[in-house]
This record gives sequence, structure tokens and C-alpha cells, in this order.
Amino acid sequence: MTKTTKKIKAAILIIGNEVLSGRTQDLNVSFISSWLNTNCGISVEEVRIIPDAEKKIIFNVLDLSKKFKYVFTTGGIGPTHDDITALSISKAFKVRYGFNTEAYSILEQYYGESNFNDGRKKMAKMPRGSKLIYNPASAAPGFITKNVITLPGVPSILNSMIENCKKYLIKGSKVHSQTLSLYTVESNISKKLGLIQNKYKKFVEIGSYPFFRLGKIGVSVVSRSTSLEKLKQVNKVLLNLVKTKKIQILKI
Amino acid sequence: MTKTTKKIKAAILIIGNEVLSGRTQDLNVSFISSWLNTNCGISVEEVRIIPDAEKKIIFNVLDLSKKFKYVFTTGGIGPTHDDITALSISKAFKVRYGFNTEAYSILEQYYGESNFNDGRKKMAKMPRGSKLIYNPASAAPGFITKNVITLPGVPSILNSMIENCKKYLIKGSKVHSQTLSLYTVESNISKKLGLIQNKYKKFVEIGSYPFFRLGKIGVSVVSRSTSLEKLKQVNKVLLNLVKTKKIQILKI
Repeated sequence: MTKTTKKIKAAILIIGNEVLSGRTQDLNVSFISSWLNTNCGISVEEVRIIPDAEKKIIFNVLDLSKKFKYVFTTGGIGPTHDDITALSISKAFKVRYGFNTEAYSILEQYYGESNFNDGRKKMAKMPRGSKLIYNPASAAPGFITKNVITLPGVPSILNSMIENCKKYLIKGSKVHSQTLSLYTVESNISKKLGLIQNKYKKFVEIGSYPFFRLGKIGVSVVSRSTSLEKLKQVNKVLLNLVKTKKIQILKI
Repeated sequence: MTKTTKKIKAAILIIGNEVLSGRTQDLNVSFISSWLNTNCGISVEEVRIIPDAEKKIIFNVLDLSKKFKYVFTTGGIGPTHDDITALSISKAFKVRYGFNTEAYSILEQYYGESNFNDGRKKMAKMPRGSKLIYNPASAAPGFITKNVITLPGVPSILNSMIENCKKYLIKGSKVHSQTLSLYTVESNISKKLGLIQNKYKKFVEIGSYPFFRLGKIGVSVVSRSTSLEKLKQVNKVLLNLVKTKKIQILKI
């Protein structure tokens, strides 16, 4: 993994009717996004959730792959008829869809020759020229095609594979964050917080998120920056505000 | 709520750095989507998650409001500097951003004149001509501007308001679903399932989702259709397949 100080931006494309319909709660966005920031200094800047529909996959893969350094897709690479991600990405990039010989032999070895049926063979098909992302949980590999990284939808399997994406990614600057959880209401600090954000807007992004914990209302003030030093500066200013307003701190 | 037999499609636009960064797990997509289908016969066909950035909000609000009958936004309507959804929607539709007198008096009454500070007053500002969506949990209303419904990001507050969206929505045909949970692997049924899907593709959408429960592997076959009759037909065919293959059923 080469390192750069540039901000590297990625998008996530969740492919699956089951997530759109509300039947399945997506867990992959927060996992991938946290992992990318912590381990690779890559920021997720957009997420889209779309149905298992070829035209929509093609449009969104092309659109996002132009706008972002990397696109991570999840879902639709299993053995059944509704798994059309690999074929759709082939069509998006106008490359042949067919067996990847390495993936084929990984799967053949995993299932054994006599159990290697058509459904399972399908999981070895992908866009020509893709490189594999190994799957320690259930063998069927993900793959990278140009700047698009294709992963499965089942969170436990995806999680087991994420480290194997690292070698294909250029490393950027990690965004550090700092959370100050306060027993107050947003409107009590909103004016001052706005002024502080404005003063440091070039380096630090400040967010304010209300919470309810054990029957008490509070606000988490989250500061984010690639510079630890600037983050410390902002923290000092925020703690000053808290002191002046006599606000009780729940957690720093 | 007027009823139509047409399929009505909606999109959800989640606005918030905290969801993109992975800090906050989104819970609103599955809630809104399930509620819309069950109560209004409206299908969510696309979701986007974007940062609290004016240009991105404007672009996506306009793009989605052209493509879908309704757009539901969540997040960014609180009292702090990072709450810019209402202003951005005003800019998107080129309408004035200012106090809604009804929202102003709701909030003034809720907080009391002496506690009605600038941060709280900000929550009464919205695009001109918007209609209110009442908030029984914490007073600050959501609003509907053209076909865009703007709701808060905090799930418990959003959930308390959702019923109040109903009067603005045209009712479509509910998508019924039926889940058959089987103790088998996808590749065992993938071929036949593909044939069944192909035969009924005009009326029924069949999805296949692997699960792991109590250490056992299984597959949930989910059929979805606006026609209960067609759904029953497909169910019969699926149960036949299960019988032929001698697959153990976990749950119908």
C-alpha cells in the first residue's frame, strides 16, 4: 500500500432488494467506512443502495467509478439467479464475463469435484482482467475490476475479506476524530459552536449529534481532522466553552 | 390518502457525515421503507447517503425528486451550524428560506418565550410554501416541499412523526412478501429457483438470502408481489421443490 497525503475518497454501492425493502438491516456501510478510514486513510463520501437490477447496477457503477477513487460494491455475487453483480459490472466496463481460472480452482478445491455444481461454478465467473480478493470464510472470492471492489453482502463474510482489499488501495491521510459528550441541549451551544466551526473550518469539521442515554438528553460534539494538532486546539476551545457554560461532561 | 393501483416509487436521502463516517449506524432506511410499503403501498427504489454539504444536498434533492414520486430526506434539521438541510432544499427549488409562522408558534409555545433562543428559532425556518409534518416527540416539525419530505435524523423522533406524512402521500399497491426459510445451501436450489423466477418474472420477484442460525446454514427464499394470488401460486411451486429435494423447512 503506497501512502499519499492526499484525501482519498470512496463510495459504497449496496446492491440488494432485501436492504431496500427494509427486510434486511444494512451493517456493511458503517463497517467498511470505519475500516477504510482507520486502516487506509480513505473517506467514504457517498453511499447508494439500489435494487438487483442490471441497468441500475451498470449506471451506478459507471457513475460512481468516475466520481470516486474507489467504489466498493456489496451483494449479488452468490450462486442464485438474483446474483447479477459480476455480470452487470462486466457489461458496465464492456469486458467479457467468464470464468476466472484461479477462482475456479479455489472453489473446485473447496467444494470437491463432485459437489462443484453449476451454482457454485457461477461464483467463479467475473469480469475479465479482475484480480481476486480472497475469502477466508467461505472461499468464493471477491474481485477488483478497474477501481471497483466487489464484495459479498453477508456481513460476516465481507468482514473476513476486508483485509485482503488493502494491497489494492493507495493509502491517504487518516481522519482523526474526537467526541465530547455533554449533558446539555444543542440550542444551548449552537451559536458558539457555529463560531468555532467557522474559525477552524479549513482544518476541522465539527458535528453536533443529540443523544438520549439513561433517560437524560445530551449532545455529542464530534470534531474530525487529518491534523491531530488542530484537533487538540479545537478541543481546548470546546472545553473552554463547556467550562464557561457550566455544562456537565459525560465523556471526553 | 388517495389510492391508486399504480406502483409508486420513492427514494430516501440520508444527510449526515456521522452516517457516512461509520460513527452512526443508520436505522432510518429499513424503518421508512417497511412503513411505506406496509402503510402506503409505496416502494423505496433507491437510497443515497451524502455528507452535510450544500452542493451535494442540492444536487441529490433535485436529481431524486425528478426520478421518484417522493423523496424522504433524514437529518440536518436541528439547531446547530451543521444542520443545513432546510436551507439547501430552499436553494435547490429556488424558493425563499425563512420562518414558517405556524412552526414558529409551535416552537415558541413548546419552549416558552424566555427559552426560545436563536438555535431553536432556526428550526422554524424552511423553504417557503412548505407544509408541516407534526412532531409529537420534540415539537420541531418536519416539512414537505413539492415532493420532498424532510424528516429529522434521530430515529425515535422520526418514528414518532411518520404517521403524519400519510396525508400527503398517494397510496399505491402494497407489495406482499412471503419467506420460506430452509435448511439447505443456495447452490442446491439455485438452478430450479432460477427457472421458477423466470416463469413468474412478470408478477413475482424471488430473492435468495443465505443465513446462519444456531450454527446451521440455511437459505431464506423471499417472494414479493402485489398479487396475493400469484404469491400463493409461487409458494406452492416452491414447496414442491422443497419436497422433491427433501429439504427441511425451518419456517414458512
